[in-house]
Formats: sequence, C-alpha cells, structure tokens
Amino acid sequence: MSTVIQGKNYIGYSLSAENPYTFKAYVPVDDAYLKDDFHAASPGEVMRTMELAQKAFLEYAYIPPPQRANFLMAITEEILALGDELLERASLETGLPAVRLAGERARTITQLTQFADLLREGSWVEASIDTPIPDRLPAPKPDLRKMLVPIGPVVVFGSSNFPFAYSVAGVDTGPALAAGNPLIVKAHAAHPGVSDLTAQAVVKAAKRTGMPDGVFSMLYDDGFEVGASLVKHPYTKAVGFTGSFKGGMALYKMAQEREEPIPVFAEMGSVNPIIILPEYLKSNAENLAHTLAASVTLGAGQFCTNPGLVFVTNSDGLETFEKTYSEEILKTESATMLTAGICRNFYHLRDDILQQSGVTELALSGRTSESKTQSQASVAKVSGREFIENPKLQEEVFGPFSLLVVCDDAAELSLAISQLKGQLTTSVMGESEEIRRHTALFQNLSRISGRVIIRGVPTGVEVCPSMHHGGPFPASSDAKFTSVGRHSILRFVRPQSYQGWDNDLLPDELKNENPLGIMRLVNNKETRDTIQP
Amino acid sequence: MSTVIQGKNYIGYSLSAENPYTFKAYVPVDDAYLKDDFHAASPGEVMRTMELAQKAFLEYAYIPPPQRANFLMAITEEILALGDELLERASLETGLPAVRLAGERARTITQLTQFADLLREGSWVEASIDTPIPDRLPAPKPDLRKMLVPIGPVVVFGSSNFPFAYSVAGVDTGPALAAGNPLIVKAHAAHPGVSDLTAQAVVKAAKRTGMPDGVFSMLYDDGFEVGASLVKHPYTKAVGFTGSFKGGMALYKMAQEREEPIPVFAEMGSVNPIIILPEYLKSNAENLAHTLAASVTLGAGQFCTNPGLVFVTNSDGLETFEKTYSEEILKTESATMLTAGICRNFYHLRDDILQQSGVTELALSGRTSESKTQSQASVAKVSGREFIENPKLQEEVFGPFSLLVVCDDAAELSLAISQLKGQLTTSVMGESEEIRRHTALFQNLSRISGRVIIRGVPTGVEVCPSMHHGGPFPASSDAKFTSVGRHSILRFVRPQSYQGWDNDLLPDELKNENPLGIMRLVNNKETRDTIQP
Repeated sequence: MSTVIQGKNYIGYSLSAENPYTFKAYVPVDDAYLKDDFHAASPGEVMRTMELAQKAFLEYAYIPPPQRANFLMAITEEILALGDELLERASLETGLPAVRLAGERARTITQLTQFADLLREGSWVEASIDTPIPDRLPAPKPDLRKMLVPIGPVVVFGSSNFPFAYSVAGVDTGPALAAGNPLIVKAHAAHPGVSDLTAQAVVKAAKRTGMPDGVFSMLYDDGFEVGASLVKHPYTKAVGFTGSFKGGMALYKMAQEREEPIPVFAEMGSVNPIIILPEYLKSNAENLAHTLAASVTLGAGQFCTNPGLVFVTNSDGLETFEKTYSEEILKTESATMLTAGICRNFYHLRDDILQQSGVTELALSGRTSESKTQSQASVAKVSGREFIENPKLQEEVFGPFSLLVVCDDAAELSLAISQLKGQLTTSVMGESEEIRRHTALFQNLSRISGRVIIRGVPTGVEVCPSMHHGGPFPASSDAKFTSVGRHSILRFVRPQSYQGWDNDLLPDELKNENPLGIMRLVNNKETRDTIQP
Repeated sequence: MSTVIQGKNYIGYSLSAENPYTFKAYVPVDDAYLKDDFHAASPGEVMRTMELAQKAFLEYAYIPPPQRANFLMAITEEILALGDELLERASLETGLPAVRLAGERARTITQLTQFADLLREGSWVEASIDTPIPDRLPAPKPDLRKMLVPIGPVVVFGSSNFPFAYSVAGVDTGPALAAGNPLIVKAHAAHPGVSDLTAQAVVKAAKRTGMPDGVFSMLYDDGFEVGASLVKHPYTKAVGFTGSFKGGMALYKMAQEREEPIPVFAEMGSVNPIIILPEYLKSNAENLAHTLAASVTLGAGQFCTNPGLVFVTNSDGLETFEKTYSEEILKTESATMLTAGICRNFYHLRDDILQQSGVTELALSGRTSESKTQSQASVAKVSGREFIENPKLQEEVFGPFSLLVVCDDAAELSLAISQLKGQLTTSVMGESEEIRRHTALFQNLSRISGRVIIRGVPTGVEVCPSMHHGGPFPASSDAKFTSVGRHSILRFVRPQSYQGWDNDLLPDELKNENPLGIMRLVNNKETRDTIQP
C-alpha cells in the first residue's frame, strides 16, 4: 500500500498549491531528477500558514502535556507505518545507504519518544513555588509560582544531511511541538519527497489525537524567499536551523532586524579539532590513524561533528601515524554526497585549503565515477606556525577531508589551540596523567567547546540528557542551548510567574495538591510533596 | 571613619585616571553638583580592563564555588561596613528617601546572600550524568556528563533607579560573579559616588578572599563611548542592562553587529497593565482606587513595574473609582525624581500622551517647588476605541502617571488587551469566578506577560526563586531569562558536555563519588547518590 507524494504545501490540515512554480527531487547517485513536482509556497500561503498557526497556538498551548505526548507517539507510529517506502525514498533523495537511514529513523523515533516520556512525567516545566508570608514585615510576602510556558509559532528549517533526525519530525521540530508551540517546517529542497511523506505522517497523527488545525504546517521552496518570509513574520517567535555558517547567519541577521527580534537557534557546524598528546601518539600511532580516518570519512564526512583538524607535535610516532592515516585515506572508497552543490562546494573549499601557503596533500583516494556527486577522501598537512598565521585554515570543509597540523612543540601547540574559534566538540587523545601535565591547554580547549571528548572521536551524537550539541559561536548562534537531548526543549519555552492566584485557576503543575506528582522547587527545596494552603 | 571617594576607574586592583575629562555627581533635590571629580575611562583603559578580565577569567572560572561564595559574602560585609555614609551619599545622588534606600541595601545583601547559598549548596550547575553501556549494539554508549560552566567577561550597566539593587553589586553583577565570570561594571553617571564606594567594597572583598586581579573592574563615563567600547570588545561574552527601551535596544543592536554576536540581557520596562473586571469594580471601587494610586505614585513612579495603564469597562463603580483615584492623585505630594533629565523626559512623555486624540486629564497633583526635578502625579483617561486605534498610548511614561482606558464592554476590553505588546507584568482584579468567565481575555494576557498577578499591584518585586522579572519583547530583550531570583544566574553560563573523561579529571560536580553531595540527573533520574564505576 503505497503513500502518494502530494507535492503541495501542508497548511494545517489543508493542501495548497497556489504557486505554479514547481521543482523536482534530485537523485545524487544518478545525477537525475524524480518525476514528482513540488510547489513552492506563495506569499499568500505563507500568510495563511502563519495566521492559522497563531490561531492554533491559543488552543494548543492549553492542551495538557500528556495529550501532546500522545500526538508525538502517534507521529512515531505513522512514520513507522510508512515502512520501507520511506527509507527507499530517503535513499534515492540523499544517496545515503539504507542501513544508515534505518539507524537514523530509529534515532528519530527515540527522540520523539523521549519527549513524549518527558511530557508524561511532567517535571520538565521546572515548577517553582514560594508560599506566602502574610505577616512578614515590612511587607507581606505574596504567593508566587513559576513554570515554563510555550512561546508561540516556531519555524524550523529541515537540514540536508539528516532527512529524518534533523528534519520534519526531528531534533528541532519534536521539542517545539512538545513544548506546546505550533510548528511550521520549511522542507529542505534536497529531500522534498521524504519531507512530504513525513508531513503526511505528522498530519495523520495530529488529526487522530485531536490536535487543532494549524498545529503543524510544512511549506516548500527551493530558494530563499519562503524561509525569509517565515522568519520575518510577526507571529513567528523562534527559529530552529541546522546547516552552514552562511545560511545560519543569514537567518540570524534577518531575525535581529525585525521590529521584534526573535531567537534563531542555528547549529552551524565546526571543525571539531582533535589534539593528540605526544606520549599517546607514541604508543597509539597506528590505532589512532585507523580511528580518525574512519571518523573523518564516515558518511562521506557529511556530519557537523566531522573532525576536520588534527593537532600533533613533531615527536615519536608521528611518521607511523601519518603513514597509516594516509594509507587509510587512500583505501577509502569514493562516496556519493547529498547533492551536486554540496559536492562542488566540498571540492572548492578543500582546494582552497590546499592552495594556502605551506599546505601539502598527503593522500587522495580514488574516484569510482565522474558523477557530479562523488567525493574523494583526502588528508593534508601544515606546520603549526603556518596554521597560527592563517585563520583560513580553520574553515570547515564539509566532507571527507582533514588537515593535520604539526606543531614543533607543546608551546606552539598551545598557541595554535588558543587561536581556535568556538567548536561543537574537541577531542583530546592522551592518558589521564599526560592530560594533567597539559592543564592550560586543556582549559583553553574547554573554553571554546560545547563538548570535550577524551580518547574518542566526535562523530556519533548520543541522544541522552547529558549530551550538549551546540557550542560557543560560530559553532552555534547561542551557546546556551543544545539541539539534542531533553534540554533542547528549553529553546522553545519561557518562564512565567503567577502571583496571588486562586488555586483553582492555576495550571495543574502549580496547584497545591500537585495533581501531576511532579518534582517542584517549593520554598527553594526540591520535592514532590503537596502544599498545605 | 570616612571612606574617600576616589573618582578613578577601578581596573582590577589598580586605580586609573588617564583621561583628563571628568564629570561631577548631581544632587537632584538641590539641582546642584557635588565637588568630587569622576574620570571617564579612556580607550586605553577600556582595553586594559578587558585584557585583565580575560586573564582573570582563566583563573576565576576554576575557583571552587564555595570560595566564590565567600567572595560574595565578603562583599555584603564590606557594603555594610560602609555604614550610613553609603546611604547618605545615595540619598544625595538619587533624591530617594533614606528609608527606601535602607530597604534597597537590605535587598541587595539578600540577593548576594542567596547566590552565596546557591554556590555552597552546589546543585545549581544542573549536573547530568549518563553512564556508559560498552556492550550496547550497534554501537557502545559512551560515558557522558554535563554541567553549566561560566562564559567569560560580563559587562553590566548600572541602572539609574536602583543605586544598590541594580547597580555595582546588584541583580546582574551578583549572578555574573557567582557563575564564575569576571565582571566589568559601567557605573551609572547619575550616582557615581555610591558606585565608587560600592566598588571599593567589592575590591576589598575580592582581595581578602584571594580572588584574581581583574575579577572586578568598574569604569566611569557620563556619555556613551565607554559603554559602547565595552559591548564591542571581543573578550566580552554577555551584557546586563536595566533601563529604557531606547538604551537597551542600542546596546542590543551593537552586540548583534559584532563579528561574534553576544547576548544582551536588557530589561527595558513596560506599562504593566491592570485589568479590572466589572463585578470586582462594582464591589471594590474605592479600595482599588486607593491601592492603584499608591502603587503608581510609589517612589515617584520610578519603577519598571509601575502600573501605567488601567483597563475598566463602563459599568457600576466606575464613577466612584475615577473620583477616588483622582482625589488620591490630587493629594499626592510632589516628589524628587532621580535626575533632571528623567524629570524632563517624564513631563515630555506625559504631555505627549495628553495631546493624543480623546485623552483627557482627570487630576494633576500640586508641585511644592519649581525645581527641575519635582514630579507632579497625574491620571488621564481615554476610551477603549481610541486606545485600540493609537499604539502611542501604550508607550511607557517613566514616572507617576497612569492612563485609564474605559472600554464600552467586554468585547472592546478583549480587543484592547489583544493589542498590547509584551509586558513585565499584568494584573487582573477579579474574583476567581469572574476571571473564569473571561478565560480568553485571561489567556491573551498570559501570552504577553512575564508575571500575571491576581488582585495585586505589580510594584514590589519579591526576591525569590519563583519570581520571573522579565517578559516578552519589548519588556525584555530575551523573554527566557529573569534578572531577579536564583535563575538569573542562567544568563551567564552555558552547558558543557564531558565525554569519556577519567573520573579524576572531571570537575567535582561530575565525579562518580559526588563529593559535593549535589542533586544530579543520573541516567535521567534526579538523585544525590554516588555512581558505581
């Protein structure tokens, strides 16, 4: 039983195709296009979408969290009900292998399930209660309570490299909906068919769990206009984005120039430096080379956590490391990249780095075809001194490429590290004792990193509460927020205080009897107890 | 034993007065100036300040929180040691009565003490731990931990209306220091002497508790240049501000236009609407008039929570309410405002409102002198229809003025409410039953408010965990954060993840043995238990 791709804009529960302009889905493996047409949204459709979302907000915000949890779980069911068809379409549109996509779909289900669990447990609203002291002098202390509340319509941009986990029902959209906000997705033009199928799953789930029309909309565009109009619309209260620095900053600027500035949570990638300490290099040169080469070429290097810079000192083991690393790169099979544009950009940025003063290529893998989407893995090297003098060498090359920075000694390594911009991750390869002897370097790394890894690679972003996926600028536009894990919901809420409220008017989370049994901060102590009025 | 006002810039532990340009402290009651000279900081002094702060950061960030707590408590001791001298100087420079200033100093001590307590208890870092599952398939689960870490130098602008509680050792500076960030204060030019004395207290406290040189600096300026240079400096990582919309937005724009945008937490005030429901008006007309008139004229109306708009419907009790309110305003004694500029602005903005179509003045209090700083309290009224049509009537008039908006009926009231911009607070005067019958109106109010008060006035900002002092734009630049209460520390931290760390390298907060005994989220459950490795 096949699901028909509609190719029309999902404005709440209605399909709309006002705009005659259409585009098609690209198949990177074949450098060809699929037959379905996707209608870019018209300015009128953008307006209708936002008006419907705003209307839905006033209803959706008051739907109890356990019902919102049912909605999220229904989305997971409807996604799974699409079966292999969804995976096949995803593989066609992205060139990613089926096993990777099956894993990504599983991760997406996990993400949504975790938010459903969070909503059912209920303590995520960070309820806080201060009971009154009517006879306090010089003035009575009022009854004050506080909790997190939704903010309004949230616009999310699907990302190119994760058609499920960072797309229509992914890490930005899940928590936006969980928090009680209507969601408007700008589908990524690189996988419109997967987006269409997923949107149908979300709409079905919304309908059967009784969510208001407008809780979810999805619009198409293969250009920038629809996205820009969504970000600029006065009803939009926050934006979620995962992608390039250029794309993220364009949205960020747009949002700041509004009459009412709004937050843009843009995860813009980074070069995820790896620092190998000398003793560790000496005893682990070969293993390290295998591990790093595998990490940098994984999925054609199309991860924001891809390790693009590797720092070493000119010491024992370096020769073996370089040799083994180069051999591994040479052995790497060429892989299909997500789009012709991404592949073109990859070669362009890599060549830019190779042309910088002092950069030499160590190894370049073969190419199985002349297709516009085939990547070749490669590794280059440069001295610490050249790196320190040339900020260009810090730029992200999205794809299977890494630059080895060979420093003369610990002092030069330290200086090189201190030049680094904000990163999603940094990794230190060293045993505890050796790391201890490099405290200053280690602290410098911490200062610029969202996640610091010891003896591990950055690829593989675990979906759990302790994951912080984000980092100081330019890794993210806002270092305070993660886009992965339960705390990612904090992007789409704000605290609100309730002073002097009658108990029966309060939201359940703040009532004396604690009907939801949630953890609350009562007079500055965490407890699930009820309150004696 | 008197403390000498230095009038020089506090660059860490050094005094500096490179710039020959000086200004003097104004005495609003006398419309005169005090003798001391205050040196505006030079561009070179700004640079040195920021370099010292950055250097201090790498040390201060690693000072254990209990030691930072000692520092905060030492500040409270040194402030109290300044004795009446500090209150007298504050009274001279602000025109505020001694009893109000004594209360404000007490509040300031409370604020700092609460942060010291928070640091000593330790759970505020929101530690989270996910233990590893090495044999998980398809990939092992790594050891992941997370906590809040400081961000770097924080710049805070002292505010004009709270020389203690929102100034050198106030609601922005306290949590910035508590979080582990070096602090740079731009002293408010309206009370430089109080700022100077307080800075001396902070410096003494920092020295005697062994804090690094540069953990605290304070610079003077009676113009905009020093503030602008501080906001634009690349080492600055966040800005705290309480003041006007214009001032806050100027800083906000500046911060967004940096190569690395940084957050500006600007609390920009609001009109704090009061909504009186018809039945409640009928039975409480006189009381309400007394209460509201007292709230709006408190401290010459110089509070960001001053209630500037009062919504009523044309119904029983309105006449009594208007009459009593007007009588109360007429009886109000004229009061000294903080500066001649604030007073001039007050009359200017009030007159602007009075000149709008349909606005009529109901009462204007007398004036005891012709001084440039004497305010007259007043109240005006306008119809709901005129209010709906004229956004100008929503603008804040900082001072003892309020506008009564008289709506024809509940529908017009609802429409008027739906036009309101973001507010720090809104208050609803009605019994539970009557409020229930106005659910839509009530929900509309919630949507735009940081704090919703039932049967109470907005003035009086309780310092406790459940207080949210902030609100949707334009009340604050970032509705997610409060400037009052323990959660205000969240403005000056970011989460960081630690993956695969050796237990001995981890910060104490994340070690298996939980040496601080803090509450942590371990495998998604809150506990103070230790972890079996």
